[in-house]
Amino acid sequence: MIDINKANEKAIQKVLNAQPFLVGMGIARDVIPGMHENLFLHAGPPITWEKMSGPMRGAVMGALMYEGRANTPEEAEKIAESGEIEFSPCHEYGAVGPMAGVTSPSMPVYIVENREHGNKAFSNMNEGYGKVLRYGAYDEEVLGRLKWFDEELYPLLKKAIELSGGIDMKSMIAQQLQMGDEGHNRNKAGTSLLIRTIAEYVVKTKADHDVLERAFNFMNSNDLFNLNALMASCKATMDAAHGIEGSTLVTVMARNGTEFGIRVSGLGDRWFTGPVQQPDGLYFSGYTAEDANGDIGDSTITETSGIGAFAMASAPAIVQFISGSPDMALEATNEMYEITIAENNAFGIPILDFRGSPTGIDIRKVIETGILPKINTGIAHKNPGVGQVGAGLVTPPMNCFEDALEAFAETLAEA
Amino acid sequence: MIDINKANEKAIQKVLNAQPFLVGMGIARDVIPGMHENLFLHAGPPITWEKMSGPMRGAVMGALMYEGRANTPEEAEKIAESGEIEFSPCHEYGAVGPMAGVTSPSMPVYIVENREHGNKAFSNMNEGYGKVLRYGAYDEEVLGRLKWFDEELYPLLKKAIELSGGIDMKSMIAQQLQMGDEGHNRNKAGTSLLIRTIAEYVVKTKADHDVLERAFNFMNSNDLFNLNALMASCKATMDAAHGIEGSTLVTVMARNGTEFGIRVSGLGDRWFTGPVQQPDGLYFSGYTAEDANGDIGDSTITETSGIGAFAMASAPAIVQFISGSPDMALEATNEMYEITIAENNAFGIPILDFRGSPTGIDIRKVIETGILPKINTGIAHKNPGVGQVGAGLVTPPMNCFEDALEAFAETLAEA
Repeated sequence: MIDINKANEKAIQKVLNAQPFLVGMGIARDVIPGMHENLFLHAGPPITWEKMSGPMRGAVMGALMYEGRANTPEEAEKIAESGEIEFSPCHEYGAVGPMAGVTSPSMPVYIVENREHGNKAFSNMNEGYGKVLRYGAYDEEVLGRLKWFDEELYPLLKKAIELSGGIDMKSMIAQQLQMGDEGHNRNKAGTSLLIRTIAEYVVKTKADHDVLERAFNFMNSNDLFNLNALMASCKATMDAAHGIEGSTLVTVMARNGTEFGIRVSGLGDRWFTGPVQQPDGLYFSGYTAEDANGDIGDSTITETSGIGAFAMASAPAIVQFISGSPDMALEATNEMYEITIAENNAFGIPILDFRGSPTGIDIRKVIETGILPKINTGIAHKNPGVGQVGAGLVTPPMNCFEDALEAFAETLAEA
Repeated sequence: MIDINKANEKAIQKVLNAQPFLVGMGIARDVIPGMHENLFLHAGPPITWEKMSGPMRGAVMGALMYEGRANTPEEAEKIAESGEIEFSPCHEYGAVGPMAGVTSPSMPVYIVENREHGNKAFSNMNEGYGKVLRYGAYDEEVLGRLKWFDEELYPLLKKAIELSGGIDMKSMIAQQLQMGDEGHNRNKAGTSLLIRTIAEYVVKTKADHDVLERAFNFMNSNDLFNLNALMASCKATMDAAHGIEGSTLVTVMARNGTEFGIRVSGLGDRWFTGPVQQPDGLYFSGYTAEDANGDIGDSTITETSGIGAFAMASAPAIVQFISGSPDMALEATNEMYEITIAENNAFGIPILDFRGSPTGIDIRKVIETGILPKINTGIAHKNPGVGQVGAGLVTPPMNCFEDALEAFAETLAEA
């Protein structure tokens, strides 16, 4: 007979012992195993072009133009619907991408290595706020920024990360949680820590002074600069705990803008999906809930690994960005202890007397308590080509967890 | 008749409206008005060489060697006791210095301008933790670092600050309070924010790559890198509120290691002093309370202006450094509302629902409530030449406030 608690204990130890280091960068086609010229990765569970929401379509169209395969949005749309491009979840290739998460073969990605377990994870580069590819925008400003990444920022950061010998991302996340970040929607401290850590190696590249100046200016302008490397660190952490027979630990929660999907450690590569919810939050000036796309992005890998909304007590100032009160931030974290397996020994929350953040969702506990995981999220415009319109809170659909538990029961019956 | 509340309202508005900007750097003798070749500034109220405690003597001896006026500690001691050097409080020259605060004519200082009121304040450069001049150490490592400041780091930062057009220190302090700093003993976020803000201007100087590398390495290694510029910002803020007839606002609290002194807005340039207390805190490995010097330093300008221990609720993680529990941090801030005039509209504390930090000590309230201002502080070894041995909490002696109130009553009687 399978001992579920024992299996979960084994799985959670992998999570708690993970040692994600940012070790390098590379071009997706060269470094992501299985990546090929006609493969475009996207956020969330599997989806076809037909079912993709506006922002994900926009990001695919932008990526086709970025790749030089289309000259106009119209041309890009034709290629996307022709079947010429294979669409697959980032998560099935060891990768994660915020919002649309579209990662095409030529894009530079961060490489995070879990030095405890040897596995690697990948994520593309963060473009900043507002009109950006990951929110479905694709105009000249968006494509110009990606070109600058390729030609200047990526080679610089790649060299700097290599010169650093690897950056301890777990230590950085632990520090962020003592500095008002929750690591998902608020990464101001994480961005600041990454900049100050990498600065000496950035100049050690001996790049031209104007290249250095543009790089520091961009990094300083983007309070989500560290987000993608952080997400890859969470992915490298959770992947190590995947595939443990009998474990009911959730190792993936991800949204493609149409469907929400989860994966469970003991249930192999199956996705359990349901319709995405509408985030509840604050909108940028000129936008309302009417403009909002459904929940989207792989950034829920933060909550999956015990930070993000799960560690919201660390980040009371976040309510200025996603609505609510500082009390709500405390309550969110306190509630998440009800559905998680462990308290993370590395991630102490100061205001809770350094109690470890609630880590590792157990599908059984979600069903028993009826408490859904809380998620902090950005909100994308529902149409392609627009961008970010707000930020807020959201939950997964309950049926993902019900279906997963049912499948788990079947597995036990077969065992 | 003098309306004290009206006078305090006028004084506190000067505090709340202050706009301190880091605008430049210069050599003390060139930029501090009144500075001359034989003048050494120090922390706290006035003191003679004979009454100076170990760490302040150590810092004076180190400064004499740094200035090239002595070759050995013994030679330095002889010069110091000869009467050749004039010792004066930093505060009497618009300056502030952490711990011993010794500022000699050749030292580089930050220049902070209060753009609302036009006054300027100064502070020397922060050397990092442990064995440093401000804690009374003076060996080759200490003097070598100061030499490197003079030759390389100071010219670089001076140029970078000038290229920046001025750095808004008030905005930076406000952000720190949302990022787990209280701005006195914990400045990890402030340091990170200053590094990321200044980085593009540092490289814009077009200094050699190895110069840039050493600068970023040092800045990243020192979580108090921003402290001295921050202290000068607090000084520029409080100086604007000094000298208002009838005001019972405390504009200076400072320690010279032997005596604690305060100054009051409506009481001119008089100091009200009492013996310093022993800080209560945590000691570095190998040291105990037996090794500790009495309370020392001008860094209490932070508490005087409403941050530091007054904003400790913003920095629950600080208890790891100074002892205590996160609850204690909340209580400290809550208690300080009892003795202050205003809640600082610029400095919201997230966990207190963005309530403004308790700002502006009223000597009347201290006497009425019997509540002494709380102060976070570093702890120096009592002997010259050693350095920092710990950090903790301390309060001023009550008689400073009693004496000030008595003097105030006399002033009123004369009016």
